[in-house]
Amino acid sequence: MRVGIQGERGAFSHEAALRALGDAVEIVPCESFERLFEAAASGRADRVMVPIENSLHGSIHENYDRLSGSPLHIVGEVGLRVRQCLIGRPGAEISGLTRVASHPVALAQCRLFFAEHSRIEAVVAYDTAGSVRDLMRDGPPTSAAIASVLAAELYGGQVLEAGIEDDPQNYTRFLILARAEGPLEGATKTSLVFTLKHEPGTLHRALGFFAVRGVDVAKIESRPLRGRPFEYLFYVDVLGDRRGALGDALRELETVSASLRILGSYPAAARPDYA
Amino acid sequence: MRVGIQGERGAFSHEAALRALGDAVEIVPCESFERLFEAAASGRADRVMVPIENSLHGSIHENYDRLSGSPLHIVGEVGLRVRQCLIGRPGAEISGLTRVASHPVALAQCRLFFAEHSRIEAVVAYDTAGSVRDLMRDGPPTSAAIASVLAAELYGGQVLEAGIEDDPQNYTRFLILARAEGPLEGATKTSLVFTLKHEPGTLHRALGFFAVRGVDVAKIESRPLRGRPFEYLFYVDVLGDRRGALGDALRELETVSASLRILGSYPAAARPDYA
Repeated sequence: MRVGIQGERGAFSHEAALRALGDAVEIVPCESFERLFEAAASGRADRVMVPIENSLHGSIHENYDRLSGSPLHIVGEVGLRVRQCLIGRPGAEISGLTRVASHPVALAQCRLFFAEHSRIEAVVAYDTAGSVRDLMRDGPPTSAAIASVLAAELYGGQVLEAGIEDDPQNYTRFLILARAEGPLEGATKTSLVFTLKHEPGTLHRALGFFAVRGVDVAKIESRPLRGRPFEYLFYVDVLGDRRGALGDALRELETVSASLRILGSYPAAARPDYA
Repeated sequence: MRVGIQGERGAFSHEAALRALGDAVEIVPCESFERLFEAAASGRADRVMVPIENSLHGSIHENYDRLSGSPLHIVGEVGLRVRQCLIGRPGAEISGLTRVASHPVALAQCRLFFAEHSRIEAVVAYDTAGSVRDLMRDGPPTSAAIASVLAAELYGGQVLEAGIEDDPQNYTRFLILARAEGPLEGATKTSLVFTLKHEPGTLHRALGFFAVRGVDVAKIESRPLRGRPFEYLFYVDVLGDRRGALGDALRELETVSASLRILGSYPAAARPDYA
């Protein structure tokens, strides 16, 4: 199975792919999220891993937007703790470092490390794992990178310090997307996007379709719609079997929504992965 | 009025403070969000500006957490378009640049600029505006920074290109916090955080207290609670006058919530600012 990720081999998306889909996957690196979605749509990848929510930074609206606008379906999810590692060339020591490269978001998550090591300059790279690959190719022993432990293993770097992120409660939830819908058999979670007129009570009424059937709402998020000030967009995850009461609730919801799109039904990841 | 911001003078928070509170404010720069909340709690600042939501990146959970854990109150809000500018020393030209410094998040928002100018190295700084200040102090003409137009004005830099962010639909909503609650007179929006048992129908029932009274929900977001797998946390903004039906709804909600905290009641910003 070919699995697309944004970034280079060794990215956190790669780690998430191995955890969700097993060690036998063939990774297809994509340089941007646009390319990642294209890889799935064109068939260059059978599945793609898309980060959708982070415990510190919240939902990743950009990727919800890309998903809503694409013909792809969610077929699975996986949660991953983001553990940033300082990776040097073999034999390197922290005391000898002058420059540390990584993706801007990873650098921002390791503020305390740079505050404690004020002589080390933080340098932007376009990818966490790519910064390890470049380091191992021709970097000096005074340079290091910040990336996953997987990146150190893949490129032969040495983990000089593990877990240098400021806040260890840093989890990312990834969605697994495919061209075809997943089987309803075994699917325990359904993600949907719908819009409602922005009037008192419309959301309460919409949730009533689930509540009266005992269908549990696992996530809800509202978002103002650009240029349509009287409508709201909702991202909702519901639990249950779409072949039963949940399916009835969705059909009823469709009658009151200005628009509704079911993004996919899939097996819910075990809670402890993410929460 | 002394207004605390995270970052240096010229940060986007500074721009938000001027827009919301007028040009006469005295800015109190704070190096971190922890210091910013302390500045308000200790009285070193009368108000502080806290980014809470971005149109691309979603809600900033970290700041919701800080707010929930603090004794401060929301007394206002303001939305701001984040317009990143390339700022050089007077007389500098883009064709002569070799290094551009900024905060990691700003650099990440300008990926296309760096892709088009592949000979320019992106360098991490701890602050957008601080990178302009440093540039103007002793930077070479081959260096530039990415920050707000306000930073260019304050430090005497020259805007070489305005609006270099990849996605112009980049808005941030800031909350204005103070030690004392704001007046209920004129307050049209109330923000609250509450927890519910994670059972089918609990959310529907909670929203019913608002729906039956015609109280409009302007924002809702659920979040799993760490270490408490059967409870959910909700961030909700409701519209209306707390001295009327909204106050009754809140008192009823309190009877079914495991916990409820009203973060503040304040005048809602005009919609076009943010959406």
